[in-house]
Amino acid sequence: MNLKKKKKSYKVKNLSPGTMAYRGKKQTTAISIDIINYNGDSYKREHSNRVEDAFNHKGNDQVTWININGLNNIKEIETIGLHYELHPLTLEDIVNTHQRPKIDEFENHLYIVFKMLYFKDDDQLTKEHVSMIVGKDYILTFQEADGDVFDDLRDRINSTKGRIRMRGADYLMYAILDAIVDNYFSVIEAFGDKIEELERHIFESSTSSNETPNKIQALKQDVLKIRRAIFPLREVINRLDKTDINFLEIKTHDYLKDLHDHIIQVCESIDLYREMVWSLMDMYMTIINNKMNEVMKVLTIMASIFIPLTFIAGIYGMNFDHMPELHTKNGYYILLGAMAVIFVLMLFYFRRKKWL
Amino acid sequence: MNLKKKKKSYKVKNLSPGTMAYRGKKQTTAISIDIINYNGDSYKREHSNRVEDAFNHKGNDQVTWININGLNNIKEIETIGLHYELHPLTLEDIVNTHQRPKIDEFENHLYIVFKMLYFKDDDQLTKEHVSMIVGKDYILTFQEADGDVFDDLRDRINSTKGRIRMRGADYLMYAILDAIVDNYFSVIEAFGDKIEELERHIFESSTSSNETPNKIQALKQDVLKIRRAIFPLREVINRLDKTDINFLEIKTHDYLKDLHDHIIQVCESIDLYREMVWSLMDMYMTIINNKMNEVMKVLTIMASIFIPLTFIAGIYGMNFDHMPELHTKNGYYILLGAMAVIFVLMLFYFRRKKWL
Amino acid sequence: MNLKKKKKSYKVKNLSPGTMAYRGKKQTTAISIDIINYNGDSYKREHSNRVEDAFNHKGNDQVTWININGLNNIKEIETIGLHYELHPLTLEDIVNTHQRPKIDEFENHLYIVFKMLYFKDDDQLTKEHVSMIVGKDYILTFQEADGDVFDDLRDRINSTKGRIRMRGADYLMYAILDAIVDNYFSVIEAFGDKIEELERHIFESSTSSNETPNKIQALKQDVLKIRRAIFPLREVINRLDKTDINFLEIKTHDYLKDLHDHIIQVCESIDLYREMVWSLMDMYMTIINNKMNEVMKVLTIMASIFIPLTFIAGIYGMNFDHMPELHTKNGYYILLGAMAVIFVLMLFYFRRKKWL
Amino acid sequence: MNLKKKKKSYKVKNLSPGTMAYRGKKQTTAISIDIINYNGDSYKREHSNRVEDAFNHKGNDQVTWININGLNNIKEIETIGLHYELHPLTLEDIVNTHQRPKIDEFENHLYIVFKMLYFKDDDQLTKEHVSMIVGKDYILTFQEADGDVFDDLRDRINSTKGRIRMRGADYLMYAILDAIVDNYFSVIEAFGDKIEELERHIFESSTSSNETPNKIQALKQDVLKIRRAIFPLREVINRLDKTDINFLEIKTHDYLKDLHDHIIQVCESIDLYREMVWSLMDMYMTIINNKMNEVMKVLTIMASIFIPLTFIAGIYGMNFDHMPELHTKNGYYILLGAMAVIFVLMLFYFRRKKWL
Amino acid sequence: MNLKKKKKSYKVKNLSPGTMAYRGKKQTTAISIDIINYNGDSYKREHSNRVEDAFNHKGNDQVTWININGLNNIKEIETIGLHYELHPLTLEDIVNTHQRPKIDEFENHLYIVFKMLYFKDDDQLTKEHVSMIVGKDYILTFQEADGDVFDDLRDRINSTKGRIRMRGADYLMYAILDAIVDNYFSVIEAFGDKIEELERHIFESSTSSNETPNKIQALKQDVLKIRRAIFPLREVINRLDKTDINFLEIKTHDYLKDLHDHIIQVCESIDLYREMVWSLMDMYMTIINNKMNEVMKVLTIMASIFIPLTFIAGIYGMNFDHMPELHTKNGYYILLGAMAVIFVLMLFYFRRKKWL
Repeated sequence: MNLKKKKKSYKVKNLSPGTMAYRGKKQTTAISIDIINYNGDSYKREHSNRVEDAFNHKGNDQVTWININGLNNIKEIETIGLHYELHPLTLEDIVNTHQRPKIDEFENHLYIVFKMLYFKDDDQLTKEHVSMIVGKDYILTFQEADGDVFDDLRDRINSTKGRIRMRGADYLMYAILDAIVDNYFSVIEAFGDKIEELERHIFESSTSSNETPNKIQALKQDVLKIRRAIFPLREVINRLDKTDINFLEIKTHDYLKDLHDHIIQVCESIDLYREMVWSLMDMYMTIINNKMNEVMKVLTIMASIFIPLTFIAGIYGMNFDHMPELHTKNGYYILLGAMAVIFVLMLFYFRRKKWL
Repeated sequence: MNLKKKKKSYKVKNLSPGTMAYRGKKQTTAISIDIINYNGDSYKREHSNRVEDAFNHKGNDQVTWININGLNNIKEIETIGLHYELHPLTLEDIVNTHQRPKIDEFENHLYIVFKMLYFKDDDQLTKEHVSMIVGKDYILTFQEADGDVFDDLRDRINSTKGRIRMRGADYLMYAILDAIVDNYFSVIEAFGDKIEELERHIFESSTSSNETPNKIQALKQDVLKIRRAIFPLREVINRLDKTDINFLEIKTHDYLKDLHDHIIQVCESIDLYREMVWSLMDMYMTIINNKMNEVMKVLTIMASIFIPLTFIAGIYGMNFDHMPELHTKNGYYILLGAMAVIFVLMLFYFRRKKWL
Repeated sequence: MNLKKKKKSYKVKNLSPGTMAYRGKKQTTAISIDIINYNGDSYKREHSNRVEDAFNHKGNDQVTWININGLNNIKEIETIGLHYELHPLTLEDIVNTHQRPKIDEFENHLYIVFKMLYFKDDDQLTKEHVSMIVGKDYILTFQEADGDVFDDLRDRINSTKGRIRMRGADYLMYAILDAIVDNYFSVIEAFGDKIEELERHIFESSTSSNETPNKIQALKQDVLKIRRAIFPLREVINRLDKTDINFLEIKTHDYLKDLHDHIIQVCESIDLYREMVWSLMDMYMTIINNKMNEVMKVLTIMASIFIPLTFIAGIYGMNFDHMPELHTKNGYYILLGAMAVIFVLMLFYFRRKKWL
Repeated sequence: MNLKKKKKSYKVKNLSPGTMAYRGKKQTTAISIDIINYNGDSYKREHSNRVEDAFNHKGNDQVTWININGLNNIKEIETIGLHYELHPLTLEDIVNTHQRPKIDEFENHLYIVFKMLYFKDDDQLTKEHVSMIVGKDYILTFQEADGDVFDDLRDRINSTKGRIRMRGADYLMYAILDAIVDNYFSVIEAFGDKIEELERHIFESSTSSNETPNKIQALKQDVLKIRRAIFPLREVINRLDKTDINFLEIKTHDYLKDLHDHIIQVCESIDLYREMVWSLMDMYMTIINNKMNEVMKVLTIMASIFIPLTFIAGIYGMNFDHMPELHTKNGYYILLGAMAVIFVLMLFYFRRKKWL
Repeated sequence: MNLKKKKKSYKVKNLSPGTMAYRGKKQTTAISIDIINYNGDSYKREHSNRVEDAFNHKGNDQVTWININGLNNIKEIETIGLHYELHPLTLEDIVNTHQRPKIDEFENHLYIVFKMLYFKDDDQLTKEHVSMIVGKDYILTFQEADGDVFDDLRDRINSTKGRIRMRGADYLMYAILDAIVDNYFSVIEAFGDKIEELERHIFESSTSSNETPNKIQALKQDVLKIRRAIFPLREVINRLDKTDINFLEIKTHDYLKDLHDHIIQVCESIDLYREMVWSLMDMYMTIINNKMNEVMKVLTIMASIFIPLTFIAGIYGMNFDHMPELHTKNGYYILLGAMAVIFVLMLFYFRRKKWL
């Protein structure tokens, strides 16, 4: 194999299993903790930067949702993990932003990993690694940085009338996943628009720059990456629906089934767009060839008409002593006429070939 | 990922699960309710715009089919849903026209979603989201708008001689699905004709416009979309055949198996057409290249014949003092003869190469 | 979706399930019934056009094979169906020539659908829809029209020495299917020859007409259609081997397993040919490009050699007063020599580039 | 379907099941029987042309391996088959060289079919149809013709020290299959070398003949055919490992598992080579296009430089009475200079475009 | 099949099963044995070249890891194998470097084969065949040559604080596999960079050499080979997790599940890169065609402008006696003006076509 390293060193340190290593974007923001406590009657939301505040879930008849932003704060996250008795490998996965979506069942809690895709304020697509610990009456969520897709959900918890205030942590888990999947729909819709736009561009554009294949290639890679971020969640939700953990109420299963339907729909859309992007390259190729055909026709028509005529003119430009045609009175006009006839015949020929 | 939003905002509101949101075409038509009551002896059909009329299924020994048109009337549909004790998520799916075909089993009824494909009066292919609630002795169907494929079925119910008047709601459910699948056959037949027509066009057309790749691309997308609308129904019918809901008579299973055969046949046809459309692009590419080859040959023959001849004429157009050939008596005629010989040899050469 | 109907109307009448509708080629031939009765000792073959003769299978220790030709005679077939107590859906499938191969088990008989592919007298490949009803001691076969692949089988039944006279209707069923599958082998062999012939044609032909892509495209569609006619039979035979119908003798299973082996072999061959046909288009494309390369080289060599030479001749054809070269004694010969040198150098250059 | 027979007749006689029909290469060699008897203590090898010698396996504490060459001797093979009580269908398969690899279990013996691929003395790849009957203490192998891959195995049996002399017929069966699979490795290695060689040829060759696509196409078909000969053996060995026939010792299973590992490795290699061959055509296409690009550049550079210059020369070759430039003293030299400047600028332009 | 051997002989000796044959790179280094003994309290590492030292695993409460480098020393490895009572087929596989990854369970130990991919000191990707014997309290690893990815692991064992010193041989097995899989990540990351670099190169490069398709082809083969080395390990780890061998502690299963997650992630990345490499060829093809289009446009513009102008100049270079234009006073200037107008119109025309 001729695969050879360049400059960069790919030798990684083989860390002890369970060692926490943050692999996301470099950032130095402090940890930010957001705590929501609610039941049918009460609602309280707090915000803190102190790790200890993440420990205080009441447990008495209330649901506690603790959201922790800032995976770069490894120490603090480890402290939280120890408090909630998380497995060392779980802690490793919480901060490893490359971890693929998965679900791990433990005796007292579930651990779910997924990717949050959303448009930030600058309308740039953002992919964030999110971990969720689901306990009997609490949920911990760990996010890479501030900004998420849960604002509508928080509003619904705040307002007293929603179903969510009547239900336990298992329903909250469902609601969080539902918010994630709902956002996937908007991401793939944006993707579909992007494809359509590029398709229109390909048909209308007249220049044959390398920009277009570049864009198609980028779209291909995007669809592959989005696919990879979303597809494993299908299996996660499927297994979640079949888990026999004790705090999952029966009526929540209806919602999980619905969620499963939705994620399948997302996956089908991705595969549809995938096929479309793949066939864009073919289509572009065809259009380039069509253009080249057009160019070749112009060249061929011009050359085929004027090269023979030039030859004839060349004949009568020769300096032979004895060229009787040159000395006839109307020779010049007769020749011009003959040339015009050839010209017209050629045009006629190319028209019959449908090249004009 | 360089996916970036343009203009349009893709931020969707994450609605509470079970919230009904109509996502179909904008329309303002009022709800339209069509009620058919029948058994072996009697038949009655009513039409109404009042929601309350949808509640009145007799239940005594009669089958009631209530068809509701106009999914945009969310309030009215919710009222109906509450009367028939539908799950909030079912209500959400009834009006969500993006919902993929599926089947949900509840204690007292089945909920089936499918897509109705048919040609409207203007012969435009129409895709409609249809939901069906199947109870012990009633069926509710919800359609996006007026116009459907059930007219033949209604006629058969009306006439006394058909098998359908002897049977229960489960057979009516089968008959509705059968009407849907029968129409799929006509849609894919139209699709097949479209492919054949385009294929013929590709072979016969002489211009190399971008219209053809555009059409192929559109066909590709159509086949992918039809596929997506129809394929999940296969699984739905399969599961329907295996459901253990109590009101499904044993002899109806024979009909469901037959229906399953039919939907598989539709799916096989779609995949066949899919492969055909995919290979159209390849074929078109080949034909463009064939044409370019043709163009190149004309250019090459013209240039190869006349450029050398022009060169020779150029030689004797030079003004050197001492060019003895110019002063020979028959030099001019000898040269013309030589040129003619070259011309003929060239023609001969290209003929041997089979370019002429 | 821009799918739009043209001229033809695709609105089909949604018929009542079990309604018999013949969808094969238009034909008006009367029904033709062929009855063979045999056991170890006796053999009798009758031919009739009267439906009632199809009812007379003796049942006493004999095997009766009733073959009915002419699916367009719907009434007569219905009469026969009623006599043998066939399910309405079975009757519908018998005359529906679009029905894909399948097997249905009933209490007293099996219903098997398959496609018969064979070369008619004019060597044209014919596809026929065949249905078979297998009872305890009788077999009914329904064919679209006269002409089939069972003549050798009938001869074997006639001659006393074959195994078939000792066995029951289940063995006859196997023998009929075996005759069908044996014929598939000859069809795919013909197909293989066709591919090879086209491949040879592509390599040898010099013209670049559209006829070749047309032929490749047609082969693609043929292989897809043959595949579709044959593949489902694999599943049919597999299920036949596993059926627990009471009149299937244990030792017949060995034969069914062998048949299953054969149909798998046919399917593998089809998929092999399929890959070959698909790669034909690629190969043809390559060959067109090779040809275009050839054409371009001729053009480039001719133009590259003579255009510069013509330019030089043009220089000395100018009419400047002061062009000393024109007046030297050997100027003309020196120039001709220089041109010859350039000509040779050019040839040398193109030879080194291996274009000549 | 436009599939139509040419000349050759594809009508096959539908033979009675169990009828033996040799379908391999025409040959007239007599049957050749090779008998090896051995146990831990004794070893004896005999050779014969008489069918009766094939009957004499001692059975007392010895393993007998009877190898029969010459499948064209149908009568003799039938005689052997009757002696060993083989099923008629087994006999049919033994001589049917088109039969795909399979395993059939009977009460007292196993019947295994596989394909032997090996290089004959003239280094030509040979494919041979081999059948093996495995009984409690004997093995029959049937080969198309002389020459096989078992010589090393026979040597090992002959020498007293190998494991094989201590074990029964089941181990011999394993050893025979192992010899077959070992040889597959050498065949696919040869195939890999062939691909590499062709790849190198494509990169280095300068001519664009049709020989290369022809070779790639042939490789494609070879890989498909080898694949088809080898792949089913994977399933055969898998089923062999799971058979519950009584004479298969437990410790032989370890060896069968190892064999299964090997055949999977062969299959993986074949699929790897398959992908490589498929991408060869793409690569070749790219290289042709690269070459055409090269040709086009030469043409464009030559034409773009000399056509304008020729035009200028043409201007001053005109015969107008009043062309003042013609009469200036240095006009000619100035023009030559201007032409040189244009020439250099053009070169500069094409160099900047990186075409030179 | 036209597959024919060249020069090289592919006839392999069919060796007795269990015969050890080293198939890796030729090397003559002596065997090198590295022994690590540890438990919670003690740690000792020894190095030796004597085979007998490999026998001395204490067994009393300690874990012994014996690493043997140098698979070419078949005799020595056989001696070790006999001491540890390894199956002959296991010994064969230990030295057969072509053996694919697999797991074999024996009564007292597990045998695991995998491929080690890593960058050697010269940054060249190295693939090594590694076998591992896992017993109750010892592990044997066999490597092709010196140099491996276990240095970090040895350091962790040496330092007293790691989890590994508290656990048994089963955890060591996990840690070894974890080190292997961790290194796969670095290899595929290097691969991803390689693809990106090539992609950038394709877009930026201006020459159309064959180097690029060569590189793409090489990448294709690399990705196929890496895939083949890594993918089977997925199944190995899966089966390892399900094995019921007695010395595998329950809490080690959590780690094995995590390992399974990681290997799936590696496999997904490989398939992602695979699709990217495959689409590189398409993209490159498009870019070549774009370039050719560019070249053709230059040629067409130059030829279309100057060929007609040259023709006009040719007209007035003719020597007819009566060409009145030649004798008008401003004929020359008028003609030059007319030519300039034609020139500008042509430029205008090509600009409107967006070719300029």
